[in-house]
Amino acid sequence: MAEKRIYGLGVSAGIGLGPAFLYRPHLSQQQPQLTEVQDIAGELARLQAAKEQCEADLHKLVDYTRETLGEEKSTIIKGQISFLLDPGFYPEMIKRVETRSYPAERAVQEVTEEFARIFEQMPNEYLRERAADIRDVGRRLLTLLQGGQQLSLAELDREVIIVADDLTPSDTVQLNRNLVKGIVTRVGGKTSHTAILARSLGIPAILGVGAEIESINHSDNLLIDGQAGLCIINPEQATLTEYQEKAAAEQLRLQELQAFAHRPACTVDGKCFEIVANIGTPEEAELALEQGAEGIGLYRTEFLFMHREQMPDEEEQFQAYRRVAEIMGERPVIIRTLDIGGDKELPYLELEKEMNPFLGYRAIRIGLNQPQLLKTQLRAILRASVYGNIKIMFPMISSLEEWREARRIYQEAEADLKQEGKEFKAGLELGIMVEVPSAAVLAARFAKEVDFFSIGTNDLVQYTIAVDRMNEKVAYLYDYFHPAVLGLIKLVIDAAHREGKWVGMCGSMAGDPLAAPLLVGLGLDEWSMSAGSIKEIKRIIAGLDARACAELAERALQLNTTAEVRELLQTFHH
Amino acid sequence: MAEKRIYGLGVSAGIGLGPAFLYRPHLSQQQPQLTEVQDIAGELARLQAAKEQCEADLHKLVDYTRETLGEEKSTIIKGQISFLLDPGFYPEMIKRVETRSYPAERAVQEVTEEFARIFEQMPNEYLRERAADIRDVGRRLLTLLQGGQQLSLAELDREVIIVADDLTPSDTVQLNRNLVKGIVTRVGGKTSHTAILARSLGIPAILGVGAEIESINHSDNLLIDGQAGLCIINPEQATLTEYQEKAAAEQLRLQELQAFAHRPACTVDGKCFEIVANIGTPEEAELALEQGAEGIGLYRTEFLFMHREQMPDEEEQFQAYRRVAEIMGERPVIIRTLDIGGDKELPYLELEKEMNPFLGYRAIRIGLNQPQLLKTQLRAILRASVYGNIKIMFPMISSLEEWREARRIYQEAEADLKQEGKEFKAGLELGIMVEVPSAAVLAARFAKEVDFFSIGTNDLVQYTIAVDRMNEKVAYLYDYFHPAVLGLIKLVIDAAHREGKWVGMCGSMAGDPLAAPLLVGLGLDEWSMSAGSIKEIKRIIAGLDARACAELAERALQLNTTAEVRELLQTFHH
Repeated sequence: MAEKRIYGLGVSAGIGLGPAFLYRPHLSQQQPQLTEVQDIAGELARLQAAKEQCEADLHKLVDYTRETLGEEKSTIIKGQISFLLDPGFYPEMIKRVETRSYPAERAVQEVTEEFARIFEQMPNEYLRERAADIRDVGRRLLTLLQGGQQLSLAELDREVIIVADDLTPSDTVQLNRNLVKGIVTRVGGKTSHTAILARSLGIPAILGVGAEIESINHSDNLLIDGQAGLCIINPEQATLTEYQEKAAAEQLRLQELQAFAHRPACTVDGKCFEIVANIGTPEEAELALEQGAEGIGLYRTEFLFMHREQMPDEEEQFQAYRRVAEIMGERPVIIRTLDIGGDKELPYLELEKEMNPFLGYRAIRIGLNQPQLLKTQLRAILRASVYGNIKIMFPMISSLEEWREARRIYQEAEADLKQEGKEFKAGLELGIMVEVPSAAVLAARFAKEVDFFSIGTNDLVQYTIAVDRMNEKVAYLYDYFHPAVLGLIKLVIDAAHREGKWVGMCGSMAGDPLAAPLLVGLGLDEWSMSAGSIKEIKRIIAGLDARACAELAERALQLNTTAEVRELLQTFHH
Repeated sequence: MAEKRIYGLGVSAGIGLGPAFLYRPHLSQQQPQLTEVQDIAGELARLQAAKEQCEADLHKLVDYTRETLGEEKSTIIKGQISFLLDPGFYPEMIKRVETRSYPAERAVQEVTEEFARIFEQMPNEYLRERAADIRDVGRRLLTLLQGGQQLSLAELDREVIIVADDLTPSDTVQLNRNLVKGIVTRVGGKTSHTAILARSLGIPAILGVGAEIESINHSDNLLIDGQAGLCIINPEQATLTEYQEKAAAEQLRLQELQAFAHRPACTVDGKCFEIVANIGTPEEAELALEQGAEGIGLYRTEFLFMHREQMPDEEEQFQAYRRVAEIMGERPVIIRTLDIGGDKELPYLELEKEMNPFLGYRAIRIGLNQPQLLKTQLRAILRASVYGNIKIMFPMISSLEEWREARRIYQEAEADLKQEGKEFKAGLELGIMVEVPSAAVLAARFAKEVDFFSIGTNDLVQYTIAVDRMNEKVAYLYDYFHPAVLGLIKLVIDAAHREGKWVGMCGSMAGDPLAAPLLVGLGLDEWSMSAGSIKEIKRIIAGLDARACAELAERALQLNTTAEVRELLQTFHH
């Protein structure tokens, strides 16, 4: 049989090989029971028992998830409990048994589908994705009614590639990363729980394959390339060999790189740089340490706030920040205050739709407009500071006024905690993201007041060249090697050094091998990147001569076009 | 009777006073004729006659409009002829007479309403506003069927304030600016024809008043304030006195200012500046001359392309550019190539919806991507160049590559015209808008290649501070006195002067009295603004000392915050 190739959204990179495991059919595909029941009271008792057991199971799962995957992930399951308590859900099932003499199973099936479909039609992506949670609760009830144990992916006993319409949050949190070699689903987007969890577990995943998923039969041999979004069904020997070679070469490269993971990043002439990681959750901090991170240069706290129904309170935030601080020990952890808005929504903040969200109400603008929100976060960070080496940075600062106001709120948080007798380290280092052109232009003035800068190249490039890099029509203009961007980076680094301050960078430029000699030459102090890039950047720096890099940077800054800069760097690289 | 105040969208400033003239009720409010006709053939002949007369009237109106208001405005009426020829419009009326024995009037009423409603539900604002054109054609047919002459606003014989549900394009082009003292409508937005025409005719107008418009009775005395969007019905004597004083004071101020209109703008110590106007149409060029413009610093050609169904061809563009060149004579006319996209749509270009249109596919990005479009415009400009003193500038330039590519296309246009033996002036001055931060940062490099700069402060501020000024939540951040913006302006002016090039400014900062001493101090060469601001800016410059202004600018550039800059300027101003 010839191999067949189907495509979806590659949401988690890596090559996976294994037999297909067709997991749980769609709820509505189960056979409906159409008979009427005579013993209404008995049927209601069955339904009630299933509901109580389901609630208990979910509470256990919350605890299990909190322990294995952390507080944030467990809130996904808490959301399921809330559906079970919704007046439109379980009480409606009771009503159908009482008034229509439905068997409990049919009441569960119908109400679950109706309720899930209401959510599927909502205008908000986050709410639409809740349909999966609702169906998950419905399936649990059904399984319990049918006397079965809840089938669990945690019970898998062999290596497989999971194939499903969709995975529910409770499915994904139970995945065993040693046995699940890949995930292929019919539906699902980049911000779905499945995507986020697959990435954080390092499992290759292809979502949104659509109807083509029906080409896959149980136990078919599957080969998936999570980067390309490609799933090959029953691959031919030549294909297998090709991908095995690819995987082996990648493996070899990673092993060679591994030698660099835990060395300092110093050039041949002894100039050393701090190589740190960007993370979104405490779990990623552990991964970052394995990869050789000397600290956290950017802890994106917004993940703690997203995909949930209400703001995390001070205590929950404190626990998360404390956990990262403890994992990293003496190593620095730079926590960025909430950077929401732009392309990141928080349903419970009820942000309005904007014509140009990247030029809108986001990040520190929200924090200064709703100071209670910022202050709560700063209190949580301060309380966590005693457990490690925490610094704070503010995103999207565009004027000295904003920076001074943010610092004032920080000082208030310190004063309040002191008065309450709470434990914290006073006088944390405070820095700003340099990602708005006005902050770069005024770097010399900021440098007199802040403790450090972190250059956010992703946004800085977008604003400096006036280009939304997510917009395919103009993405060709987006390039951090644009001479104006290089000019601003140099300006920021020099301004900071004149005042004895240090400069980091947390945009994707910091992890780009091509940029490394240039950044060494410009004297960037701290480089923050995806954990996966750390070893390679350390390896490259180890082969560089700082003086040659300084000359390279000087030449690059004279060039007029992006193409000339890239050419110069490529020549230097080889 | 007590006065009553109602509010709408103030789309054209000024104070207007006069009796209400209730103009033409809504088509659907007319009494429908429900009888069946017996003589179908006779009814069809009546309908046919009305249609032919209507077509002839509209063709005449096209000619009249072209002569009085220019080519662009006449295309609005051409659009109406196209509806008359639409297979879903007149043929559908015939069908209703034939198959349902409708009287011609009823067929016209029903089909017009149905057709107009289809347009009203379209997702595109431009298409939605076409509903007014459709109803206008329907009303013309109806009037002709009823044997009447087309009632025309051009036939008004006394001063009035027009009150209407909506004004059709053919209504507005016939307005006599001496008799119509104001316009109040139930519907209509800022980009409607009524708004555009009211502004260009200088008639105060309040649109979108809504149901409150029914408070106005025929011949009620009305007082309207087009700036505030306020309409006062039967104003009391005190109100009348107040507004008459306001209007008189404004009149006096304008008379005093008039003395400055035609003087050069020179400081007391003899430093002179070029004060020019921003325009969108040839008609505005005449107005600009009256107001004292020494040239056109920004001719926004996009108005020639908007509110129509297809691209204007080379000949039509040539005629418009030639007209402006001829009106201005020896005075410079800087034509900006098409600056579409962002918040300005062209339906026939089929631009896709963008997440962040201000950071998207717009202006020169479109011109370089569709070079035939840019080249056609450059050919039309070159051909018009023999009739005056034309220069060209390219909008949204973000890199030297873009500028060089635009210049290459200009050179191709020259070469093509030469080969075709067409008349043109070779080697026009070519400049760029400095509105993207990267262009400002690289000003020293651009200055070696371009003939001039024009700083577009509106966009430059938006990108430099990352703020969409149309977004109410963050508009407070938008300020051209932001220290980073001042730093960039200084950088651009100094870079140009070092290369012996001149610098203009065409954002609203150039017309702001508060900014004038600062811009004198920075040495801005050419100031381009709304024609209405010219006299006042000339008056202010005449009272300044250039050396004191240079010191002021130096001090302003040392300040850290926008508030400090504003305070310094306010102190200087008084």
